[in-house]
Amino acid sequence: MTVSDPVENLSKLIRCPSVTPEEGGALTALAGMLEPLGFTVERMTAREAGTPDVENLYARLGAAGPHLMFAGHTDVVPPGDESAWKHPPFAAAIDDGRLYGRGAVDMKGGIACFVAALARHVEEHGPLAGSVSFLITGDEEGPSINGTDKLLQWAHARGERWDAALVGEPTNPDALGDMIKVGRRGSLSGRITVTGTQGHVAYPHRADNPLRALTAMLSALMATPFDDGTDRFPPSNLEVTSVDTGNPATNVIAATATAVFNIRFNDRWSEETLKAEIAARLERAAADTALRPGREPARFALEWLGRVSPVFLTRDDKLAGGLSDAIKAVTGREPALSTTGGTSDARFIKDYCPVVEFGLVGESMHKVDENVPVADLEQLTRIYRAFIERWFAIAVAR
Amino acid sequence: MTVSDPVENLSKLIRCPSVTPEEGGALTALAGMLEPLGFTVERMTAREAGTPDVENLYARLGAAGPHLMFAGHTDVVPPGDESAWKHPPFAAAIDDGRLYGRGAVDMKGGIACFVAALARHVEEHGPLAGSVSFLITGDEEGPSINGTDKLLQWAHARGERWDAALVGEPTNPDALGDMIKVGRRGSLSGRITVTGTQGHVAYPHRADNPLRALTAMLSALMATPFDDGTDRFPPSNLEVTSVDTGNPATNVIAATATAVFNIRFNDRWSEETLKAEIAARLERAAADTALRPGREPARFALEWLGRVSPVFLTRDDKLAGGLSDAIKAVTGREPALSTTGGTSDARFIKDYCPVVEFGLVGESMHKVDENVPVADLEQLTRIYRAFIERWFAIAVAR
Ligand SMILES: [Zn+2]
Ligand SMILES: [Zn+2]
Repeated sequence: MTVSDPVENLSKLIRCPSVTPEEGGALTALAGMLEPLGFTVERMTAREAGTPDVENLYARLGAAGPHLMFAGHTDVVPPGDESAWKHPPFAAAIDDGRLYGRGAVDMKGGIACFVAALARHVEEHGPLAGSVSFLITGDEEGPSINGTDKLLQWAHARGERWDAALVGEPTNPDALGDMIKVGRRGSLSGRITVTGTQGHVAYPHRADNPLRALTAMLSALMATPFDDGTDRFPPSNLEVTSVDTGNPATNVIAATATAVFNIRFNDRWSEETLKAEIAARLERAAADTALRPGREPARFALEWLGRVSPVFLTRDDKLAGGLSDAIKAVTGREPALSTTGGTSDARFIKDYCPVVEFGLVGESMHKVDENVPVADLEQLTRIYRAFIERWFAIAVAR
Repeated sequence: MTVSDPVENLSKLIRCPSVTPEEGGALTALAGMLEPLGFTVERMTAREAGTPDVENLYARLGAAGPHLMFAGHTDVVPPGDESAWKHPPFAAAIDDGRLYGRGAVDMKGGIACFVAALARHVEEHGPLAGSVSFLITGDEEGPSINGTDKLLQWAHARGERWDAALVGEPTNPDALGDMIKVGRRGSLSGRITVTGTQGHVAYPHRADNPLRALTAMLSALMATPFDDGTDRFPPSNLEVTSVDTGNPATNVIAATATAVFNIRFNDRWSEETLKAEIAARLERAAADTALRPGREPARFALEWLGRVSPVFLTRDDKLAGGLSDAIKAVTGREPALSTTGGTSDARFIKDYCPVVEFGLVGESMHKVDENVPVADLEQLTRIYRAFIERWFAIAVAR
């Protein structure tokens, strides 16, 4: 069966120019690999799953439990200046043991390896002792609104239930086997608007400069770390992403000034305690700027922007432990169980079942000359296969 | 002689809607008051004085020295919502002892009183023991580029020399006689641009947030006063007027951030020492933000914006003392010799001769229902007349 070769699978996928949000033939190519394995493949677009302009795929092999989900995306970031690439970004050229192309590691490579691993497993063991499904979106590199989130809702509404999920995003900083991701810090964004009193710079006593208070508030947010990290998480970290006044007149004190910040926070905090801490820091700083005689505390508004991404940690030792064992068996490495990095679609999946992430080495992702060592593709296929064997054995043994 | 009545003079001037940069008939009306007194009146526009789009007036009475200049402007700020005015802004209505109209105190009133004072002086004493000139611009409330500065250059190039100047801007905070202005703090503006390294908020160790350094730099500029004031000057004061980043993405650390500031500085500083102090504060703050291990000091650029307005103090006791005596004789008040407030056209005149400023009470300037008590117009006329008598006597006695 040809789909047991990850290099061939990946080459087919790379040749589909699926620059987000274009499907580019990638989901069709994937369906062409899964159907011969016995998968029931469904393609969701606007009508079916409420995902306008984005195509997604859900495929399942088997009807019984336990049920393992493999999640990922076939969309890729734009190649940028194609002439800067050593090999064309959609050609899947192999050069010096490396396969080049946009999406090679993020994350058509992970999909190609999981398909190959499953094919080998079925080839050797026959029908699965349970079910495997692929939940693949075309909207991970874009706004992530019409992808995994809606796809999960759609499948869940149809009665799909999962016992565990593996996201095939690149997770290894340097070498295959370095790192599994077992959770993420939360993410919270806010906007501070300080309202002062406009006036002339020569008469500061008749004005109230909002930038004086805002600078003190931003210092209060940035000066003292929120924590030193916890057992399983790195320290919470706040970054001010924009400060804006838009005052063109150098002789005028502005009436208002705004700042936007984002904090990546760990399990030391709940949404409520974190918001309270931020508000308290701002109020203290605002009060301090009123220490000049005769001044009121600075007036400010704090708005929370968008949805909070809550912190999460996968406590399923059978999932994380099984994957860890598989990695160790194939590579000899003990992977770190990490919660570092930006958000991923795992933040949506965690509401349905335990989820971990493991894939290729991410170093070249989103860059010119994105590529993967051919040897890594074979190695990741073996890891995924060892994991599938362990997981179904472990799951059955429950 | 009708021009000896300041109320009549001011009413004529207010009825000319000389909203900057429109002449509105105001300079023509003024010329009509000065010519009967014997003044040679010249009107400068684009061609003659290089003042495109703005009309100015220079008028001189007398050919010999000593030579006293009266300086001011006939342009006014826009009236805003005319329906909000108790009396139409260009009607010169008198109501309950007050004359209403745009420019009543800033500063058609000052011009009206000086014309009246001079008329009374000539009426009583005959020809001046010297010369008086009016240097009147139509570009004080606008950009101030084609007004007093160019008018002085034009007149000086034609051989005009002055021994002293009086600017008739409103200078009194509460009551006529409160305050003479005898100098001004300097003004210096700058822009700070911090260049960091753009990156994702989830990977702050791979980025360098320019807003971290910029916040520390702005704190360093604002936290410690530059001085506590000097014998004749209020404290230097710095205001940050704008901070801008323009980063719309809350998950991205910006590449650069800018801030603009203005400092009003006193005679504790020269342009050079002040620039050095500001640069030193910024460099220290930038170095401090590098204390986190493995970081370079923040990279920043400091540009100075526009021309520096140097600090100045009028040390001519005959001018300031003569005016002070005249005020005391008429009002019984001892005026403060102040250096507070924003820049005025005195900053240009000080390069040609000693200059002081004294006019009406400024409280209603630039506001709806700008008005002046009729009694103040008579009082200011008497002060100006007493000053003219003293100054020519003093000047002759030199
Ligand atoms: Zn990805
Ligand atoms: Zn004025």
